[in-house]
Amino acid sequence: MRYSREKLMDHSVTLLCAVGVSENNAKQIAQTLISADERGVHSHGLVRMQGYVSCVQSGGIKPNAVWKTITDGDSYALIDAEQGLGIPVSVYAADLAAQKAIKAGIAVVNVRNSHHHGACGYYAMQIAHRDMIGFAMSTGDIIMAAAGASENAIGNNPFSYAVKAGKYGMICYDIAMSAVAMGKIAMAAEEGRKIPQGWMLDRDGMPTTDPRAYVNGGTLLPFGGYKGYGLAMMVEILAGVLSGAALLKDIHAWNTNPQQGGGVGHCFVAINPRRINPELDISKRNERMIDELRAHKKAPNVERILFPGEIEQEREKVSKTEGVALPPASENALMRTAQLVGINVPLECLQTCGEG
Amino acid sequence: MRYSREKLMDHSVTLLCAVGVSENNAKQIAQTLISADERGVHSHGLVRMQGYVSCVQSGGIKPNAVWKTITDGDSYALIDAEQGLGIPVSVYAADLAAQKAIKAGIAVVNVRNSHHHGACGYYAMQIAHRDMIGFAMSTGDIIMAAAGASENAIGNNPFSYAVKAGKYGMICYDIAMSAVAMGKIAMAAEEGRKIPQGWMLDRDGMPTTDPRAYVNGGTLLPFGGYKGYGLAMMVEILAGVLSGAALLKDIHAWNTNPQQGGGVGHCFVAINPRRINPELDISKRNERMIDELRAHKKAPNVERILFPGEIEQEREKVSKTEGVALPPASENALMRTAQLVGINVPLECLQTCGEG
Repeated sequence: MRYSREKLMDHSVTLLCAVGVSENNAKQIAQTLISADERGVHSHGLVRMQGYVSCVQSGGIKPNAVWKTITDGDSYALIDAEQGLGIPVSVYAADLAAQKAIKAGIAVVNVRNSHHHGACGYYAMQIAHRDMIGFAMSTGDIIMAAAGASENAIGNNPFSYAVKAGKYGMICYDIAMSAVAMGKIAMAAEEGRKIPQGWMLDRDGMPTTDPRAYVNGGTLLPFGGYKGYGLAMMVEILAGVLSGAALLKDIHAWNTNPQQGGGVGHCFVAINPRRINPELDISKRNERMIDELRAHKKAPNVERILFPGEIEQEREKVSKTEGVALPPASENALMRTAQLVGINVPLECLQTCGEG
Repeated sequence: MRYSREKLMDHSVTLLCAVGVSENNAKQIAQTLISADERGVHSHGLVRMQGYVSCVQSGGIKPNAVWKTITDGDSYALIDAEQGLGIPVSVYAADLAAQKAIKAGIAVVNVRNSHHHGACGYYAMQIAHRDMIGFAMSTGDIIMAAAGASENAIGNNPFSYAVKAGKYGMICYDIAMSAVAMGKIAMAAEEGRKIPQGWMLDRDGMPTTDPRAYVNGGTLLPFGGYKGYGLAMMVEILAGVLSGAALLKDIHAWNTNPQQGGGVGHCFVAINPRRINPELDISKRNERMIDELRAHKKAPNVERILFPGEIEQEREKVSKTEGVALPPASENALMRTAQLVGINVPLECLQTCGEG
């Protein structure tokens, strides 16, 4: 079912404000989550509202925390989010990185004691919209095996980069280090679907196709074996070790313990080509790179050679004209969120052609 | 067979100087390649000498090129290597990044019009030895398929990071974006071994286990499908697009066209924790992270849970006491290199217990 962006925004802001989130923060959260849904990344869209609201209600997220700047240089900063909401501090930190990179050429902004911040590609694109190369990454609670292990050891630690590419719009690479994001497994469980082999081990360390195996003591597998695991460790180091955030098992499982602070760490990097290579039109040069890549001979049954984020960008365009499509898991989560805060708005009222 | 590090150094320097490489540059090249062999990364060790020497002899590498600084800021620099040797300019650029990061907290140094520079983990560790987090990456000639393509489209674009980890020594992650590095396939072909499924497609776009399929028009596959491909694109953007180096098919296949300039681009990043988070002992905190990771329940038949670079570090320790082990492919390449420059030193003379 497709929903009106404006109505979803208003509804989400209402739900968040009802538990004490400021209107400004609520708008940033709604904007970030709806943007993910518009791009078809439903695992990081409005389905997350329920978790945020329940953490705020339980005290694990302090909705009015005022973040603290720990260090602040020309090309770096470290921010303590004071166990506040993950999204508003990330919007701030990504903006700060871009702002510093205008003069410095490159800047890194670290955040600690934060919380889940949605799709990290959002922040990479936020930087890329300023004609830079943006990077965003985040730690998370342990849901993935180390290479060689058979139980949860590390987060699936998302990593993203984004940069403009002329007529192609925006390259946006946004991956989790597990074979798939946890959200996809949660949605499969919610919708009663099986998952492919290679995504998960069950509680006995054996391969499984049952998405419910995760909540029964299973663990996600890193993509590409030790290569994906090593990237998860890189994110743990950059977003967790460096920032002074919690690490590994000390990051609290916010879905199961909403009353505990998340202790999540983030890292945002902005690289400004105009400083480093003033002669370069990076957007144009990326466009030519993609021209060349997509002209190659295709593998059997492949219609076209994609660049990272291409499908999501196309979905986003459709969503802008036709409304935001939400799958059943997101609809259910939105309804549960409304119940949590005691607001009764039928979802039909939010649809693009709603009779509400 | 194990060889004396000192004798290998002297011999390598002699070979390089014989084709007009300065003694200083020759020492840096020999040091970088032998270090890879000591770590058991033979695909990026002395086996590469033949390629460098033949490129110098054919004019594709200008051994006495003086690199030019294009831009130079507090936290960034861009260097034009003027088609010189890849290793010396990379040693310089990595050092420059670390030097700038002492004050700036983070610094990026880009290099263009360079050449193959060996194992990029070497430069990441060079930065990490200065108590920072080091990153190194490089473009290369197209030898890998884009996700969805069935022919060479992009380099396998190595990426590495390194950082100290207390009693564990050094974390050093150093990967190619193909399922395996090209060098491993070349060595399998040299030694007549088959390769596993999933490493390569043949000229018809079909899976193959014959390492010789590559030279017959085959292509390497990215690791993890679109995830590895997207990382290859990230390196192409950071080391190639940003620096103004050649891109994709314009990077010359130095193994087959030694007379053409490589046009390779590199990118080095140094992050200095002492600026960003002065209270942090990053080495100690990484040590604790590894303590926790290796304590997890192991998968069946797994002896221990490794961190990136652990095996290589152990091999390096053995090599320091017992000498540098070289496989047949490296020995053969060294002999061919000696023939190329007309120097006749039997390899036996370089062994640790040589009778030479």
